[in-house]
Amino acid sequence: MLQPPKSEYGVLKIYVNGKWIESGTNTYLDFYDPGLGKAIGKVPLVTKEEVDEAVESAYEAFKSWSTLPMPERAQYLFKIKHILEENKELLARVNTQNHGKLLRESRGDVKRAIENVEAAISVAYSLAKGEYQHEIAKGIDETLIREPLGVFTVVSPYNFPIMIPFWFIPYALVLGDTLVVKASSTTPLPIAVTLELLTNMLPPGVVNLVYTDHRNGEYLVTHPLIEGTAFVGTSDAALRLYELSAKHGKRFLAGGGASNYAVVMPDADMDKTINALRDAKFGNTGQRCLGIQNIVVVGGSDFYEEFRNAFVDSAKKIRIGHGLDEESEMGPMASVKYRENVIRMIETGLGEGAKAVLDGRNYVNPEFPKGFYLGPTVLEDVNPNMKVAREEIFGPVANLMRAETLEEAVEYVNKNKYHHTAVIFTRNGKWAREFVHNVYVGNVGVNIGIAAPVGWFPFGGRRLAGLGSHHPQIDVVDFFTDRKVVVERWW
Amino acid sequence: MLQPPKSEYGVLKIYVNGKWIESGTNTYLDFYDPGLGKAIGKVPLVTKEEVDEAVESAYEAFKSWSTLPMPERAQYLFKIKHILEENKELLARVNTQNHGKLLRESRGDVKRAIENVEAAISVAYSLAKGEYQHEIAKGIDETLIREPLGVFTVVSPYNFPIMIPFWFIPYALVLGDTLVVKASSTTPLPIAVTLELLTNMLPPGVVNLVYTDHRNGEYLVTHPLIEGTAFVGTSDAALRLYELSAKHGKRFLAGGGASNYAVVMPDADMDKTINALRDAKFGNTGQRCLGIQNIVVVGGSDFYEEFRNAFVDSAKKIRIGHGLDEESEMGPMASVKYRENVIRMIETGLGEGAKAVLDGRNYVNPEFPKGFYLGPTVLEDVNPNMKVAREEIFGPVANLMRAETLEEAVEYVNKNKYHHTAVIFTRNGKWAREFVHNVYVGNVGVNIGIAAPVGWFPFGGRRLAGLGSHHPQIDVVDFFTDRKVVVERWW
Amino acid sequence: MLQPPKSEYGVLKIYVNGKWIESGTNTYLDFYDPGLGKAIGKVPLVTKEEVDEAVESAYEAFKSWSTLPMPERAQYLFKIKHILEENKELLARVNTQNHGKLLRESRGDVKRAIENVEAAISVAYSLAKGEYQHEIAKGIDETLIREPLGVFTVVSPYNFPIMIPFWFIPYALVLGDTLVVKASSTTPLPIAVTLELLTNMLPPGVVNLVYTDHRNGEYLVTHPLIEGTAFVGTSDAALRLYELSAKHGKRFLAGGGASNYAVVMPDADMDKTINALRDAKFGNTGQRCLGIQNIVVVGGSDFYEEFRNAFVDSAKKIRIGHGLDEESEMGPMASVKYRENVIRMIETGLGEGAKAVLDGRNYVNPEFPKGFYLGPTVLEDVNPNMKVAREEIFGPVANLMRAETLEEAVEYVNKNKYHHTAVIFTRNGKWAREFVHNVYVGNVGVNIGIAAPVGWFPFGGRRLAGLGSHHPQIDVVDFFTDRKVVVERWW
Amino acid sequence: MLQPPKSEYGVLKIYVNGKWIESGTNTYLDFYDPGLGKAIGKVPLVTKEEVDEAVESAYEAFKSWSTLPMPERAQYLFKIKHILEENKELLARVNTQNHGKLLRESRGDVKRAIENVEAAISVAYSLAKGEYQHEIAKGIDETLIREPLGVFTVVSPYNFPIMIPFWFIPYALVLGDTLVVKASSTTPLPIAVTLELLTNMLPPGVVNLVYTDHRNGEYLVTHPLIEGTAFVGTSDAALRLYELSAKHGKRFLAGGGASNYAVVMPDADMDKTINALRDAKFGNTGQRCLGIQNIVVVGGSDFYEEFRNAFVDSAKKIRIGHGLDEESEMGPMASVKYRENVIRMIETGLGEGAKAVLDGRNYVNPEFPKGFYLGPTVLEDVNPNMKVAREEIFGPVANLMRAETLEEAVEYVNKNKYHHTAVIFTRNGKWAREFVHNVYVGNVGVNIGIAAPVGWFPFGGRRLAGLGSHHPQIDVVDFFTDRKVVVERWW
Repeated sequence: MLQPPKSEYGVLKIYVNGKWIESGTNTYLDFYDPGLGKAIGKVPLVTKEEVDEAVESAYEAFKSWSTLPMPERAQYLFKIKHILEENKELLARVNTQNHGKLLRESRGDVKRAIENVEAAISVAYSLAKGEYQHEIAKGIDETLIREPLGVFTVVSPYNFPIMIPFWFIPYALVLGDTLVVKASSTTPLPIAVTLELLTNMLPPGVVNLVYTDHRNGEYLVTHPLIEGTAFVGTSDAALRLYELSAKHGKRFLAGGGASNYAVVMPDADMDKTINALRDAKFGNTGQRCLGIQNIVVVGGSDFYEEFRNAFVDSAKKIRIGHGLDEESEMGPMASVKYRENVIRMIETGLGEGAKAVLDGRNYVNPEFPKGFYLGPTVLEDVNPNMKVAREEIFGPVANLMRAETLEEAVEYVNKNKYHHTAVIFTRNGKWAREFVHNVYVGNVGVNIGIAAPVGWFPFGGRRLAGLGSHHPQIDVVDFFTDRKVVVERWW
Repeated sequence: MLQPPKSEYGVLKIYVNGKWIESGTNTYLDFYDPGLGKAIGKVPLVTKEEVDEAVESAYEAFKSWSTLPMPERAQYLFKIKHILEENKELLARVNTQNHGKLLRESRGDVKRAIENVEAAISVAYSLAKGEYQHEIAKGIDETLIREPLGVFTVVSPYNFPIMIPFWFIPYALVLGDTLVVKASSTTPLPIAVTLELLTNMLPPGVVNLVYTDHRNGEYLVTHPLIEGTAFVGTSDAALRLYELSAKHGKRFLAGGGASNYAVVMPDADMDKTINALRDAKFGNTGQRCLGIQNIVVVGGSDFYEEFRNAFVDSAKKIRIGHGLDEESEMGPMASVKYRENVIRMIETGLGEGAKAVLDGRNYVNPEFPKGFYLGPTVLEDVNPNMKVAREEIFGPVANLMRAETLEEAVEYVNKNKYHHTAVIFTRNGKWAREFVHNVYVGNVGVNIGIAAPVGWFPFGGRRLAGLGSHHPQIDVVDFFTDRKVVVERWW
Repeated sequence: MLQPPKSEYGVLKIYVNGKWIESGTNTYLDFYDPGLGKAIGKVPLVTKEEVDEAVESAYEAFKSWSTLPMPERAQYLFKIKHILEENKELLARVNTQNHGKLLRESRGDVKRAIENVEAAISVAYSLAKGEYQHEIAKGIDETLIREPLGVFTVVSPYNFPIMIPFWFIPYALVLGDTLVVKASSTTPLPIAVTLELLTNMLPPGVVNLVYTDHRNGEYLVTHPLIEGTAFVGTSDAALRLYELSAKHGKRFLAGGGASNYAVVMPDADMDKTINALRDAKFGNTGQRCLGIQNIVVVGGSDFYEEFRNAFVDSAKKIRIGHGLDEESEMGPMASVKYRENVIRMIETGLGEGAKAVLDGRNYVNPEFPKGFYLGPTVLEDVNPNMKVAREEIFGPVANLMRAETLEEAVEYVNKNKYHHTAVIFTRNGKWAREFVHNVYVGNVGVNIGIAAPVGWFPFGGRRLAGLGSHHPQIDVVDFFTDRKVVVERWW
Repeated sequence: MLQPPKSEYGVLKIYVNGKWIESGTNTYLDFYDPGLGKAIGKVPLVTKEEVDEAVESAYEAFKSWSTLPMPERAQYLFKIKHILEENKELLARVNTQNHGKLLRESRGDVKRAIENVEAAISVAYSLAKGEYQHEIAKGIDETLIREPLGVFTVVSPYNFPIMIPFWFIPYALVLGDTLVVKASSTTPLPIAVTLELLTNMLPPGVVNLVYTDHRNGEYLVTHPLIEGTAFVGTSDAALRLYELSAKHGKRFLAGGGASNYAVVMPDADMDKTINALRDAKFGNTGQRCLGIQNIVVVGGSDFYEEFRNAFVDSAKKIRIGHGLDEESEMGPMASVKYRENVIRMIETGLGEGAKAVLDGRNYVNPEFPKGFYLGPTVLEDVNPNMKVAREEIFGPVANLMRAETLEEAVEYVNKNKYHHTAVIFTRNGKWAREFVHNVYVGNVGVNIGIAAPVGWFPFGGRRLAGLGSHHPQIDVVDFFTDRKVVVERWW
């Protein structure tokens, strides 16, 4: 039995200047339970004035928040960790209800959010320290101080509604910055419920939550009181916001799109590799930037066929169902639109000559026929030059490829424009080392399907996969602070 | 007697793919000895094809340079330090000849360039290390590797022709990136002579040197093979290149303009403060981003007048002359155009109600009447809202202001749009601490006129003074590298 | 009204291998409520076999504790922080009851203990990371791994019964080592109550708690399964245990004794300085290594007399009473013996020519005449060569001295054999800088009476004040781990 | 033809207070060219008074050396690197002449010495920085300053006469400490020649060089003006000096002895493994702490026999000769005494049941019959409990063992008392990871015979292999400095 916390949520409030208020907008979007295919509430797209209010309240809050001693700000994070843990099941259920993913996947998301709170706590006692050097020249000392800069905005995507904002929120807070979070309007509910649990304890204005249309999103990012933007979403949107931020002299970082490769070497452990890749491909219903889109099998035909058959078998057995059903093994797509995008990409692939050895396009869930479900799909005879390999699919579609050698497989990886993630499966230390160092991507896995760095390591990504020169997670410490240098002499 | 290395240099060559070649362009600019007011050579503004060649040669060179072990790349830097030291007098003389600044100022520039080589050497053995954590979860290890990214471009200004390129070059080299340096066409000579000394020992393509017009400068920065740009120059140009870089998904950092404040507290040591401020204002003929433009005297009228009189006296006594004359105390402006810009700003100030207590506009050097000289100028009754205070003057013009309290003086600092540098003169620990923490700028001095961080500290600057989220000098380590994360498990 | 948690505690249990057990010893010591001067329980001095059991249980526990992923061990610390905070008032009351210090002082101690838990949490996500460098030579990578070493022992003194063990426990735990804590038998109760709150949640053997006589203390420290000892106590005992540890090839660090100096410059803020020094001298009834023993007034006689009079007045007004009485301003000495030691030192000082301007030797508390009270004592005409200045008094006795210049005052500091702590009171930035850099001690205060570093900075101390080459608090990260280096190549 | 720099050196001078002087001692030892078996000079064992002079001159020199800005001290190191490189062939020849090792081994030693100079240079710009945190509590800042402590002594062994002193000298110098180096009297020449090249440029007293007998060695280590000792030598001597240092409250670190294991897995590349192990065993004629003493072959009899035969063949072919002969593949033992020690150990092994499959005891070099040569020796049927495996042999003797599994081989490693180094040969990532993490030693190699960390990583070693809590090389930064903490507030 599915037990969502509530079955209907009405119109979501926004959180501005320490208050949960009804937006004065007259533009609303429905948001859904994609497993049921049913609208469960409305999200307001706020007015320009409300954007101003949110930014200004953050700007005011900065004045006192930034002057709190850092260890005192850390105490807020200890409380946030505690509250998130006390409510982790609630948050997981809300996350699944609005996004569609499996409950255990949502639990993982919440765990990752908490992990970033922990990493941010550690910052107060470690990375946030500045530097000091006595007598860099006769009579002159030099001090480096890490100072918060002001108001930042976090613009987050639909696929990890709680986790991704927490790649940034806890660090900004502990470092003394304040925030306006613009959350996804496809999955607005989970972060709203999360922040509702926390906002009582935070001073007004320190965090604000809004949802916007495209135009007001750009207005927010370019607002004169905004110091910079941390964005996660498609590479196209990232590029556009990077350009706008730069034009206005603001800091910017983005995590963008991906079309990731897994390379399977002939000595890989077959069972474990299949299991890892099934999860890496179909987990989160294929909607994650670390997910694997292309699987390159290195070696002879026999090995390829053995792998292909085992992988397709494994994919076929996946039990599709509502995310809140603990027995489900894959949930629906998060929206009708995203489902359609993926179907279109499958068709593109077939048009390019790929062959569907498993086709999930027509899948209808018997229990929830209106749900936004899509079956696992496996395309064969794909090559790196096809659009279906070059571009991001972001759904449960695996492309199978073959390569003669590891070198060739690495070339496939490196010619893809996204430069996000690549993984290898092998028992051989030499092959692993070569792969690790030769792939031009930000995240690398060795016998790991989803190469997700923990919070206290950067979340990698190069070029289109990681715009700007800082990464999400711990790497934002420098992004959210300035390194002020003091040169000092006493007479 | 002035002894420039040569009196005429002809057409400068460019350095591409390991060769000093004549550009095929038909666009040339004259470059000058500003102390004589005489053209001493021509600088070619290269063709689009030559930009391509430079970038492509750097791209090719990256393939092997980036795979040299870092300690081996460090050996090149040890040699560079050695060569620069062996030739420091030559370099200082060339620097002065083309820029006009005093010989001892040029010697300081070369010392700072060498200092950045030293800091970059240290990177190979310290910051360049990655991280490793065993068992971040059961059976899973995580490694962070710092990897070079590819080809960067360095776009450098006229005022520190050798030093500023060296805020970047040695770090990029030691980290394994390769470079196209686009140097100033006003002062193209010093970096050309510097690189000539070094290029024999570097593999072809690792560093390239060109000069471009505006359009080809933008072409370079947006070239598909360029990973990012490190720029120092005006904030306007910085903003434009930041926007272009962002649009093309590239990394960018800039040091921009400034209109810096010095605050003189009533307990300051009068003589030492006057000396420090004379240098901070008139050193480098006022053409440095760390220089002081505005002097705020806190306290009563008597103190102000004592200070004003002493400062003006001190400025009056400055011996203006050719930079190569060891007895000179201030050299000429670097170009006619920059001299005119400064005169225009003085006139703006006078039009806004400032009063010239010392006016250097009509200064003509008796020995070198064609030289681009300008006398020290001191404006009184300036306030922070005047354009002459708000905008960058970049010449030997001091604005005197008064404030009742330290708080008021800090407000002056913080309302200036550049957020570059601020210094205080006091004996009082409490005032110093308040100032240091309350000014919203990147570099702070305490009883220091020029708050120049050493190479192994970042060179600060916020907002218009420091675009992007990384700073010049040691802070470029993260800018020039990616933090690749490897998540690893063995079966 | 005084409200101790209990008025009598019977025989304390020891904690070995996850169980609170009665020691099989037949040697017991009484422990006291020093404010009442009344025994409130007995502490067992364990047998040699019980030492073995404790060490062996820690050795067994190490096998699994050390292989838990560090982030999982960090979760234990989050819980420890939570439990300590939930129980901080209880712990403060027990601490005061057994030690005698003021309740607000005990609250401070517990806060400091928690602060070290926080700092240790941060270690899991920061300092505990190892290092990695790709290609330190062609084809060769190098990795540094921080590994726990095994069983350590913590030997802690009577004066901060909870705080000092927590300078070590949380770091050892998070890093994967296991511990045998040998607590003070003068104040055995507070750490026993503290660990009782925590031991349910920790795996058996990870922490053990014993009390020993001298001989078994040495047996513990030299036990073959012990990797090293972290000790805080007198310098004599520290030296003895250092020698024993070294002889057996074990790691060792100690915080030792002190006879600290405060230097009052003529521009110091009189009221704030008096307040700070009263607390620095009489806080914790003078029983803390950071406390100030000697006050050097720099400047003329008038200033000295003004200071002396104000300081003595301030000391006279201190309200002596039971620590649990919220109105008390100074508690009793922790034991009869320590009270006698201090009286003997006062007499030594008088014999050396010092003059008692305030003499607390005969103080009897009217309410608790059996309590171990001692009145504030101020000696005048002391000089650095007297025993009363050279040796540690560890009680509420202030030595007043004079010096002509800052240089002379610094000489006083530096000739003292302990090299623990020194503080200065001034408004002058130059004097502060000179003092900070010229005093040969581990901890320095500027306008701070008790220069106590927070947990995430080392707790300094040189030579007799800090034996070994590591310090308590964050600096133990290297003490409790080995830096294993892996040199790796793949064929 | 052998070309030593000189054939006779007379009585070596000592270097005290900036002068090379003749010792006033009347105790001298001969030192040798072990390849010829001929005395080539005399080394004076200095008087107690000369020890005093050396320490006192270092103490005086500390006063100014420690107050030089660190970047200025770094300039000395740049010069040292330059001088060592200019003279590296001379130094290698002297090193070989006095120690006996191959010229290419000596060249490697000099390279390693230079590498430590480079790492120490980097310290000035990186690790030597202190820390600063603004507002650790309201109004309070905290600064950590790394300060030199005073005079240290370096006590170095015979086997790496130049390299091992340079594990410490450059770091102490750059950090501002001063030194008395007590070098080996077996191989006193190489460090004397090395320092002779450097001492002109260093201020007097900063480095001193003496040779002592046992008693004066202990006198030096316990001298009241000595802050601590960095020792490398046998574990027995290390323990004794550790105890003495501790008794006198001094810092101490030691690199001690070893009996290291190599584990050969059945998938190892046979040829490369044999080559690596031949060098790891017979390189430096077996006289290095990182050398391999015990080789454990995991797997079946066939594999063992193949390995054994190939290894013995390879050992047999080693061309023994004078180190200065470029065609030699193994030099003599460094002294008659060390040669005898090794022969005694071989006999012990045979007495315990080991079987000599190759016996070098009777080897006499045809060209230099008086040289201290010993042939490669391979013992079979050795087990970890035999003395020949448990104790350090320190000569060209390999013990062959067998194990069923990797786990068993790891047990062999971990039961050895030294805990120095262990290496594995395999192609398998999983086996390598298990080995790396399960061996309880300080240095680990994967497909590397000599697991020598570069200078900017610690040189590991646990328990008897690494006494104290700091390691040689970069890890001495904390050993040679104090972390002074300043707690600061301004009124």
